[in-house]
Amino acid sequence: MERSISLRGIGSFHIGGEIVSLRGKPPIQAMLAAGGVPVTMDPNGDYVVGQMYAQYFLGGDGQRPPVVFWHGGGLTGACWETTPDGRRGWVEDFLLDGRDVYLCDAVERGRSGYAPIPDIWPVPISQSAAGLFTRFRIGRAASDTPLESLPAMAFPGTQFPADHYAQFMRQVVPRWSHTDEQIMAAYHALLARIGQRSIVVCHSQGGMFGLRSAMEAPHAIAAVVALEPASVPLEEARRRGYTTPTLIVLGDYIDGDGRWPRMRDRIMRFSAEFPCVRVLSLPEAGMKGNSHMLMMDKNNMEISAKVRAWLDAFS
Amino acid sequence: MERSISLRGIGSFHIGGEIVSLRGKPPIQAMLAAGGVPVTMDPNGDYVVGQMYAQYFLGGDGQRPPVVFWHGGGLTGACWETTPDGRRGWVEDFLLDGRDVYLCDAVERGRSGYAPIPDIWPVPISQSAAGLFTRFRIGRAASDTPLESLPAMAFPGTQFPADHYAQFMRQVVPRWSHTDEQIMAAYHALLARIGQRSIVVCHSQGGMFGLRSAMEAPHAIAAVVALEPASVPLEEARRRGYTTPTLIVLGDYIDGDGRWPRMRDRIMRFSAEFPCVRVLSLPEAGMKGNSHMLMMDKNNMEISAKVRAWLDAFS
Repeated sequence: MERSISLRGIGSFHIGGEIVSLRGKPPIQAMLAAGGVPVTMDPNGDYVVGQMYAQYFLGGDGQRPPVVFWHGGGLTGACWETTPDGRRGWVEDFLLDGRDVYLCDAVERGRSGYAPIPDIWPVPISQSAAGLFTRFRIGRAASDTPLESLPAMAFPGTQFPADHYAQFMRQVVPRWSHTDEQIMAAYHALLARIGQRSIVVCHSQGGMFGLRSAMEAPHAIAAVVALEPASVPLEEARRRGYTTPTLIVLGDYIDGDGRWPRMRDRIMRFSAEFPCVRVLSLPEAGMKGNSHMLMMDKNNMEISAKVRAWLDAFS
Repeated sequence: MERSISLRGIGSFHIGGEIVSLRGKPPIQAMLAAGGVPVTMDPNGDYVVGQMYAQYFLGGDGQRPPVVFWHGGGLTGACWETTPDGRRGWVEDFLLDGRDVYLCDAVERGRSGYAPIPDIWPVPISQSAAGLFTRFRIGRAASDTPLESLPAMAFPGTQFPADHYAQFMRQVVPRWSHTDEQIMAAYHALLARIGQRSIVVCHSQGGMFGLRSAMEAPHAIAAVVALEPASVPLEEARRRGYTTPTLIVLGDYIDGDGRWPRMRDRIMRFSAEFPCVRVLSLPEAGMKGNSHMLMMDKNNMEISAKVRAWLDAFS
C-alpha cells in the first residue's frame, strides 16, 4: 500500500534582511516581455537584501521538534528533495516519519533572492561540473573535463548516482563568499520564529551554521545532525562551551582527498573535546562509497534511517 | 475542525537547460567557509544553464488535471504560497481542493539557478520597492520614495496587504530580459514530462508563457488561467489559431495606469477574436481594489474560488 503524507499546513515566508538604498544611478530602458510595452526602469530606490526563504510542510503533530534543513554551498533547499536520479529525498522521508519540516534556501540563494546590484555584491562564485565532481568526492577529474565524460570517472563503488551527474548540476547555483554573517543571522531569526526547540539537519557550508547556532542559541535547538560540515567552531566552542547533542556524519574517500583529511582531523578533535558530539564515519560503520552529497547518494534512505534512530533519543 | 492536506508524494526536479563550456579564464582563490580551508577555484569548465526547477505536491487522485503555477517577472514560485501578511495562498488552496500542484521557478530565478558568469549573462534587471509599488498598481510613488513611506501611499480601498509591503519585497528577485525562449522551452518540457493535460495558472510575465504554450501545445493543456498577463500572443494566434479554454483575470486601477490600458485593449481584442478566451474584470464583477498581485490580495480566496468554479467545467 502506498504511504501518504498528511499535512496540517504548507506554505512559506521570508525572514530577516535589511533595506538598502540606491541613489543617483541613470535610468534603464527595458522590454520586460516580448510583445509587451517598453518600460523605463529607474534602478534607484530601496531594496531588501539578506533575507531568507523558508518553506514549511507541517507533517507532524505540532509537539515533536520540527526539523529544519540547511543546505550547503552552491545548492538550495532542492538538494533535500527528490534525488538527481528520481528517488525519494530526506524531506519526504522525514514527513513520512511525522515531522514538521522547514526547507530553507540560504541567504542569496534560491527563492531567498539576492542583491541585484553589482555595487552591493560582486560577481558570485561559480562552481563548474568537473570542479564539484572532485570537490564533492564523486571521483577525480581535471577542471577542464567535459561534463559528459564525468560519470565514467566516478570512484569505483561510489554511492552517488553518477550517471545522473548532469541532472545534479542543474540544481547547482552561484553563491557569494562574504555572506556568512547574514546567513547566520537569518537562521537565528528562523529558529526564534519557529519558537520550538528544533532539530537542525545541515550539510557542508550549512553544517558550520548548524554547529554555530547550537553553540550560540542552545535553548533553540534540540539536536544537530551535520552531514560533512565544511568547518567546526572548535576554538569558539572552547571559549563558550558546546552542549547540544550533535551527530556529525562523514562519507567515504576522505583519505585521498586534498582537503577532507584536515577537516576530519578538526571534526575528530571537536568530538573528543565535547562528549555531546558523536561522529558517525559511514565507512567505519560498514557503509562504503558515500560522496559528500550523502542525502542524495544511493543509500540515502539507510543513512536517513540511522539519523532518525539517533534523533529519536532527543525528541 | 482543521482541514488537512493529504499528499501521494512531494518532491522536485530540474528540467531542460544546456551545457555551456568556459575555457581560458584565470583561477580564483576563495574561502568557502569561515574557518575552512582556502580553495583554488578554476572557473573554467562546464555548466548547465537554462534549466528550470519544478516542485510537486501530489494532492489529487492522479486523474484530475494537475495545476502548474507559473509566476511573473521579479518573482518566484513563492508568490503562490503564503501571502506577505501570512494568509493562505493559492498552492494550499488548490491542494485542499484535491489537485496535484506543480510550483515552478522560471529559468534563471529561484531554485532554478542562473548562469553565474557575466560572460554568459549580463547584469540582471533590478526592480526597486517604489518602482514595483507603482508598476503593480498598489499605489503611485516616485521611484526614490523610501520603502517605509510606501504603505501609506497605497490606493484607498486597495486589496493588497500594503502594511506588509516590505515583506512582499523580500520575495522579489532579479531577472534577465533575454531569457524568454529558454523559459518557454522549459515550460514545454515540463508539460511533456507531466504527460497529462494540465491546467496552467500563470501571472504577468508568466501569463504570456501560459497563453503561448496553450497555442503551441494545445494537446498538453486543459485550460489556462492568466492573471493579468503581461502580453497576449494576438498576432500569432491569428496565424495559428487559439482553441484552449482560457480565463484572463484583470484587477482594478487600470484606467489611471501608464501601461495597463493598452495591455487591456489587446486582451479585450484577443478575447473578442477567440471565443474560448473569457475575460473576468474583477471591478466589473463587483470586486474592487485588486492590485496586479491578485493571488496575494486580501480577497485572494474569493478570486481563487471564482477561478476554481470556472475550472470545474474543464476537468
